[in-house]
Amino acid sequence: MSAVPGLFISFEGGEGSGKTTQIRRLEAWFRLRGRDVIVTREPGGSPGAEEIRNLLLTGDPGRWDAVTESLLMFASRRDHVERTIRPALAEGKVVLCDRFADSSVAYQGFGHGLGADFIRNLWQIAIGGFKPDLTLIFDLPVEVGLERAGARFANISAAEDRFERMGTEFHQRLRNGFIEIARNNPERCEIVDANGDIQLVYDRMISVVSTRLSGRGL
Amino acid sequence: MSAVPGLFISFEGGEGSGKTTQIRRLEAWFRLRGRDVIVTREPGGSPGAEEIRNLLLTGDPGRWDAVTESLLMFASRRDHVERTIRPALAEGKVVLCDRFADSSVAYQGFGHGLGADFIRNLWQIAIGGFKPDLTLIFDLPVEVGLERAGARFANISAAEDRFERMGTEFHQRLRNGFIEIARNNPERCEIVDANGDIQLVYDRMISVVSTRLSGRGL
Repeated sequence: MSAVPGLFISFEGGEGSGKTTQIRRLEAWFRLRGRDVIVTREPGGSPGAEEIRNLLLTGDPGRWDAVTESLLMFASRRDHVERTIRPALAEGKVVLCDRFADSSVAYQGFGHGLGADFIRNLWQIAIGGFKPDLTLIFDLPVEVGLERAGARFANISAAEDRFERMGTEFHQRLRNGFIEIARNNPERCEIVDANGDIQLVYDRMISVVSTRLSGRGL
Repeated sequence: MSAVPGLFISFEGGEGSGKTTQIRRLEAWFRLRGRDVIVTREPGGSPGAEEIRNLLLTGDPGRWDAVTESLLMFASRRDHVERTIRPALAEGKVVLCDRFADSSVAYQGFGHGLGADFIRNLWQIAIGGFKPDLTLIFDLPVEVGLERAGARFANISAAEDRFERMGTEFHQRLRNGFIEIARNNPERCEIVDANGDIQLVYDRMISVVSTRLSGRGL
């Protein structure tokens, strides 16, 4: 165990919400303050979880049904937690993670209609009570997010676009799901308004993080 | 739906118990009686499940922890049930499956010590109450089974030997686990003594199957 307590922050939100850019900026913010930081993302984040990621993000939208998809997500998450996240926290590091278990609640629970309770049951089986110290939910109107994500994917010709192609209604359920998650977990979750330019969203994020960290004595 | 009811029989037991040989012989037995039969096996049995199989059966024994392994097993099982087994049963086919969910109870529940209740909870999440009509558990002393399996794997230079290399104590817990599963599910499970030559074990299997099928009016 390290003398400095580890800190686990997850970043959630729909497609095109700008999470990835803001994670890199928050990484720099923590480094300036002398903290060791690792940046990771789901699905993936450990060698085994990356192999499962490859099964999840390629192929047809109907390749897996929602239950199978959830089981694969939590298999990769278990591996990621045990082999990457917990060891880093034990060394006193700050772990910044692009998506975590709330994404399963939102995507498979709300988006695909399995229900939040089903996913929370699986969460308990896979990783027990393990959860982030702080979850930042980047919120954006669905049309704005999909337009941003569309521009990004047109540029990089990625094959990993299975979730982007699922339709506007799906993404609306997703957004509502994230808002409900924030409402149900106020001790852990904060919504960050992601509508605006990068600097404006950054300022909102830093305001939230500063307040939370001082409030928790971290 | 078919006029003839489908029939789902799973084959369980430790390494080297001769299941695979007997499945082929029971397939012939059903075909002689005019039934459509499909033979399948786990992990795998559908295109998606085969890809998960590849993650499960290759690499170091410690590649996945027991919880991750269980989640991957049930992800592949869900896909197998939804895309192969249920459709075949709806067409009135006999489905003969080399390993099913009892293997997770035995391997990860008893063998790796997660406990049978943990796996039964996951079973319910992944496939609800779905289970075989009949489960044949091929029972054999551990030393005899491992000797047979060792000879087999030496011959085919397989890379898929991750479970065979887990040690005698593990395989003893496995055997005890299968016996306990049979004791707890007498309405569904039968132990077949697998110690003896192929014809003798075959005769025992046919005796059990005939009795069960006439008793159930199948």
